[in-house]
Amino acid sequence: MAVTRRSFLQSLGITGGAGLAYGAMSTLGLAPATAQVSFRSPAMGDLIGKVDGAAKVAILGGGPAGLCAAYELGKAGYDVTVLEARRRVGGRVWSVRNGTTETDLNGETQSCSFADGHYFNLGATRIPQSHITLDYCRELGVEVQPFGNQNANTLVNYQSATSISGTSVQYRAAKADMYGYLSELLQKAASRGALDDVLTRDDKEALSSFLRDFGDLSSDGRYLGSTRRGYTAEPGAGLNFGEHPAPFPMSDTIRSGLGRNFSFEFGYDQAMMMMTPVGGMDRIYAAFQREIGTQRIHFGAEVAAMRNTPDGVRVEYTQDGARKTLDADYCICTLPPNLVGRLANNLPADVLTALKAAIPVSSGKLGIEYSRRWWELEDRIYGGASNTDKDIAQIMFPYDHYHGDRGVVVGYYNTGRRHQAFESLTHRQRVAKAVDEGAAIHGEKYRRDIVSSFSGSWRRTKYSEGAWVGWAGSDSHGGEATPEYTKLLAPVERIYFAGDHLSNAIAWQHGAFTSARDVVTALHARVAA
Amino acid sequence: MAVTRRSFLQSLGITGGAGLAYGAMSTLGLAPATAQVSFRSPAMGDLIGKVDGAAKVAILGGGPAGLCAAYELGKAGYDVTVLEARRRVGGRVWSVRNGTTETDLNGETQSCSFADGHYFNLGATRIPQSHITLDYCRELGVEVQPFGNQNANTLVNYQSATSISGTSVQYRAAKADMYGYLSELLQKAASRGALDDVLTRDDKEALSSFLRDFGDLSSDGRYLGSTRRGYTAEPGAGLNFGEHPAPFPMSDTIRSGLGRNFSFEFGYDQAMMMMTPVGGMDRIYAAFQREIGTQRIHFGAEVAAMRNTPDGVRVEYTQDGARKTLDADYCICTLPPNLVGRLANNLPADVLTALKAAIPVSSGKLGIEYSRRWWELEDRIYGGASNTDKDIAQIMFPYDHYHGDRGVVVGYYNTGRRHQAFESLTHRQRVAKAVDEGAAIHGEKYRRDIVSSFSGSWRRTKYSEGAWVGWAGSDSHGGEATPEYTKLLAPVERIYFAGDHLSNAIAWQHGAFTSARDVVTALHARVAA
Repeated sequence: MAVTRRSFLQSLGITGGAGLAYGAMSTLGLAPATAQVSFRSPAMGDLIGKVDGAAKVAILGGGPAGLCAAYELGKAGYDVTVLEARRRVGGRVWSVRNGTTETDLNGETQSCSFADGHYFNLGATRIPQSHITLDYCRELGVEVQPFGNQNANTLVNYQSATSISGTSVQYRAAKADMYGYLSELLQKAASRGALDDVLTRDDKEALSSFLRDFGDLSSDGRYLGSTRRGYTAEPGAGLNFGEHPAPFPMSDTIRSGLGRNFSFEFGYDQAMMMMTPVGGMDRIYAAFQREIGTQRIHFGAEVAAMRNTPDGVRVEYTQDGARKTLDADYCICTLPPNLVGRLANNLPADVLTALKAAIPVSSGKLGIEYSRRWWELEDRIYGGASNTDKDIAQIMFPYDHYHGDRGVVVGYYNTGRRHQAFESLTHRQRVAKAVDEGAAIHGEKYRRDIVSSFSGSWRRTKYSEGAWVGWAGSDSHGGEATPEYTKLLAPVERIYFAGDHLSNAIAWQHGAFTSARDVVTALHARVAA
Repeated sequence: MAVTRRSFLQSLGITGGAGLAYGAMSTLGLAPATAQVSFRSPAMGDLIGKVDGAAKVAILGGGPAGLCAAYELGKAGYDVTVLEARRRVGGRVWSVRNGTTETDLNGETQSCSFADGHYFNLGATRIPQSHITLDYCRELGVEVQPFGNQNANTLVNYQSATSISGTSVQYRAAKADMYGYLSELLQKAASRGALDDVLTRDDKEALSSFLRDFGDLSSDGRYLGSTRRGYTAEPGAGLNFGEHPAPFPMSDTIRSGLGRNFSFEFGYDQAMMMMTPVGGMDRIYAAFQREIGTQRIHFGAEVAAMRNTPDGVRVEYTQDGARKTLDADYCICTLPPNLVGRLANNLPADVLTALKAAIPVSSGKLGIEYSRRWWELEDRIYGGASNTDKDIAQIMFPYDHYHGDRGVVVGYYNTGRRHQAFESLTHRQRVAKAVDEGAAIHGEKYRRDIVSSFSGSWRRTKYSEGAWVGWAGSDSHGGEATPEYTKLLAPVERIYFAGDHLSNAIAWQHGAFTSARDVVTALHARVAA
């Protein structure tokens, strides 16, 4: 999909929201290599002398949006209370480790028994360099490390009507062959004069020089294989020059779809370097919790009602079997949009209708603990993912404990129909299916040395019931000002909505944080006015 | 350069060396995803009952080849003595940190004053997944971490006769534009029928589907820019969809050579994931030293003579001003080939001639300690390198201390003519030139917050006098059985040569290790026969 040409100022014109203009205007005139929308945190002095100073804010949900809002408002002395239904913070940021216990909406209870220090992120697991998630890691002192989001040694395995069908091919070989043939073809077409109406002689010369290098072409412009494909016998010393496998034939390479996932690596939010916190993504929320103050977060608090009242908001919730009420000046609701309509509420009908346009997406992961790091020892894979058109979609390798005695492999991370093939299964059935598919890619060793496992499906996870949402009429990661989406950006009297679903980075923590910042900015502007 | 089609067995036929055949034959029949040449370490029981058991071996040089040989021979109880001219092990693996002091062959003395925990590797700094260097890290318990060898946020800056000349462009934008136009052009040529003699209709359909995704083409096959280029204003929540810069024009993109370094990322030995030891590459050699036993390594031992004698070898060296002699059954000489001829010796004339075919290469690095991580804070760069056609060639960003208060940037890592532009300069002059060129790429912030620096040029470094060698008549990283190279693979009576220069991975630790393993295998076969 080519870029949507949408003017930033035009977007602002549509909204007219003070909070948005506030954040955005300060970026005008800046043109750093990668620009950030600037944000000024509310500060302790801002509220001095204000009637509504130190307003009381009820925050529903202790995930990224809720904790970010609580943290930022706390900087100015707001009296924030976070209601969180779970016994932990983080929401869909969920690092599963020894002791994690969960009963899913299928009624099955799993307990994780990974060895100490091992985990996998069942939700968010990687951070692009541009996302403000990294700024919070810096601000909160959460140590980060690289996340392997690309690896030439991982495998692709796809079905096709070619000789390559069902064959596991290293990414490096797939790339070398595709780029080789691509370059050979374009070189041939250009040298035949087929593009003389769009290419000057200088263009053609420069293009030819690029293609020779890009495709590793022979002096007569042909792709004959490349060391970039890798070796079946590693080169060493003396006269051991290594052994190259031959390239796949051109037609098979193209028709097999070996290159169908190449663009993942240069997507704006997936290109290396990618980062992740040391010890699990949930370390960010442990840090938020520490800064906010655990006493301000009420765990096990299931919200039942959320209503605007004549001079504030009233939230009703149950906690440990008791019904409780929280009155506040404002409410920030960060619950999943697909769950908000179930609350007793006095929201206008058009808001309730807008919430229904948020369609929950199926997704989830399976973590498999192996007692032997076969991916390093045999396949020489240090992080990254293998990709397939089987239901598992991908196998993600750990980015920690390199050279250790064990590790947790993510046996699938898939969405939509392919995830639905797993979400109704029992955990045991999920593992069986995932291991069968994984063994077809990485070989029989995939079945051995399995110590334990844990799986989760977000549609079947209480308090989420979706991995993220797609907006009816938009694509799955936002970027469209649909009427329903736009509707929910405005507060309903004293109730504000926030979350990644109200951002252009759906399913990313960055989306939740920027949404929370927008709401904090707007609410603070209102209080401090 | 297309693959050199060289048969592995044919290569073996040329040599006939027992050591090589031993290692190589055991790999026949194996076809793992990435194959390793297997190696059996000498073992304690191997020498029982042998006349020459526990032979005494003099090892000249305590770099990768020397320490690997000493370590492996030590496993079988050989009496090894390593003579190392420097006061440290590692040779051209040199992690410069607080306390490092060196007087170069220009006569200038530098002392490094980086903050504790900060360093840069003036020599080897990265490890491909396939290299046995990682196996030694695992075996020796040296912790490894990812090395950022690719980053969409780093910059390219090249001179050209286009509007892009001298402009700093993010890799992600350069890649999006080049891949976009490449795809548009090939799509156009194919749809015009210009390749109908080589592409079937099915091929064309599959190719078109790939190109639409690979180039992010519009529905009518044109490249109009892409979110992959990045944003001048980061997308956030609400109606902030971000601001895209327009793509560069096609002709300028092609003629500017923006893509001249793209293939680096899929080179066999440079493709991500790349790894490196935590705390410096020299941690590997600290571990070797520990395992070998420091008492077996004589530091400050400058070898003056190396001769075969009727029943062994005699090595003469000076240490702390004293002349000393070491008699041994065998000698493994891992000194740089360009320095061996200077020793008093009784090597045959053809061996001395062969040594002269090893041509030392100019290369080196400059480490700049900044007290502010501007590359993270302003450019959102977490590792990787910016590339340029200026003399500095590249700027490498640290892969550690993320979000810390300081860091060491490698201000140049260049070779040949471009490095020669630095190697005769004083350190102060080197910094001035490097900072001028760096500021032209990353802006004036490149000049600020510099705390300290340290530079080294391998041609001007005592005991090395070269970063690595190229063999006359071969390319710079080996892979050719030139007569001189082949000559030196055979022992001269009881003297064996080893080092990366006798491998097909010149300038890589893997080359030094595989060479050392081949020599150990051959020597052990001779002793244990």
